[in-house]
Amino acid sequence: MEVKVLKKVLSANDTMAQQNRRYFLRKKVFVLNMMSSPGSGKTSILEKTVERLLPEINSAIIVGDVCTTNDADRLAKTGVQVVQICTDDFGGDCHLAAHVVGNAASDLDLNDVNVLFVENVGNLVCPAEFDIGEDARVVVLSVTEGEDKPLKYPVMFRVCDAALLNKTDLLPYLDFDLDAVITNIGRIHPHMPVFEVSAKTQEGFTAWIDWLKKQVVNKAG
Amino acid sequence: MEVKVLKKVLSANDTMAQQNRRYFLRKKVFVLNMMSSPGSGKTSILEKTVERLLPEINSAIIVGDVCTTNDADRLAKTGVQVVQICTDDFGGDCHLAAHVVGNAASDLDLNDVNVLFVENVGNLVCPAEFDIGEDARVVVLSVTEGEDKPLKYPVMFRVCDAALLNKTDLLPYLDFDLDAVITNIGRIHPHMPVFEVSAKTQEGFTAWIDWLKKQVVNKAG
Repeated sequence: MEVKVLKKVLSANDTMAQQNRRYFLRKKVFVLNMMSSPGSGKTSILEKTVERLLPEINSAIIVGDVCTTNDADRLAKTGVQVVQICTDDFGGDCHLAAHVVGNAASDLDLNDVNVLFVENVGNLVCPAEFDIGEDARVVVLSVTEGEDKPLKYPVMFRVCDAALLNKTDLLPYLDFDLDAVITNIGRIHPHMPVFEVSAKTQEGFTAWIDWLKKQVVNKAG
Repeated sequence: MEVKVLKKVLSANDTMAQQNRRYFLRKKVFVLNMMSSPGSGKTSILEKTVERLLPEINSAIIVGDVCTTNDADRLAKTGVQVVQICTDDFGGDCHLAAHVVGNAASDLDLNDVNVLFVENVGNLVCPAEFDIGEDARVVVLSVTEGEDKPLKYPVMFRVCDAALLNKTDLLPYLDFDLDAVITNIGRIHPHMPVFEVSAKTQEGFTAWIDWLKKQVVNKAG
């Protein structure tokens, strides 16, 4: 009984996701769904990323949280358009659903925007299961979280197109095995690009930004 | 429609949680539900905690993950009874439900056990909504996750009875405002005890162990 209902909810979400996808295609905007645990540094990465994409590539951002507008307030300082979704208004959802993203997108002027980032709710499980009409998905993993996370949360690493290993500036102070986490990611999703970055120092950002630019240009055709 | 179904699921869970609670009372075992983001250090805290409780207090552990038995393998080395739940066997649940905990508990010999730790799935949203029949709940927050998490995930901090701020050994290398996070926790849950600890160095463990012992002794009556 529960399974049937879940299937119905997911299928309604898929319909809305396809509607979003058609809308984003019309607007020629590349949409990237960013997912991670709470506190892995999605917002910090976005702050630096939207700056580094300028002036070639214009960004807009939809930020999802259960509560607060902290992230939108931080991201607004970059000068790009930002819409904050608080899922608390919809029962405290642990993920962004497609209709919620569609509504938020309609509040943005996407005419001169090349890439729309969707910073999902901090959660390594549920957001992986909900299509929001995005073109690509990235998972951010902080090196403080441990090497085993790809094996423990395989769905997330399977559905994503790239992984960002963040906070590499902290590596000297951690017992973290970088080779092991890369091996673990490869076991779940062979050949997925993995970018080692520090949002704090911007180390490793060049490869990440290059990859991102390629995706955006490909969509613009 | 969705709301009705969710209520039904929760009510079935509550019934099972009450059944667990009666069982744990009969066994005179204090049950602690430990929740947090992925990688905040629940397993490391438990490794040190069960050792420090001995010989006065005997522990057993139920560990929940979506996948892998890594945590159970680590915890088994402490010598206490450990049961691993992989929610992947039940559709990849993002939280531990009461009936799953009940089944796992029936695999343990609780006769000489004083405290049963339930290490929940790493997720700062969903586990907060599911009663598993526990006596108390603690949330672990790693200082690498940022000061704003209590405000962003208020339900978790509201339902818990204590908070552990872990990885304090990393504070010298972070821009983390300890006063701010304590203020934020106080805004969500006034007067909740907050223990600053490092599972790595065991700094701050004395206050945490003392609090825990008091809870266990209170239940034993």
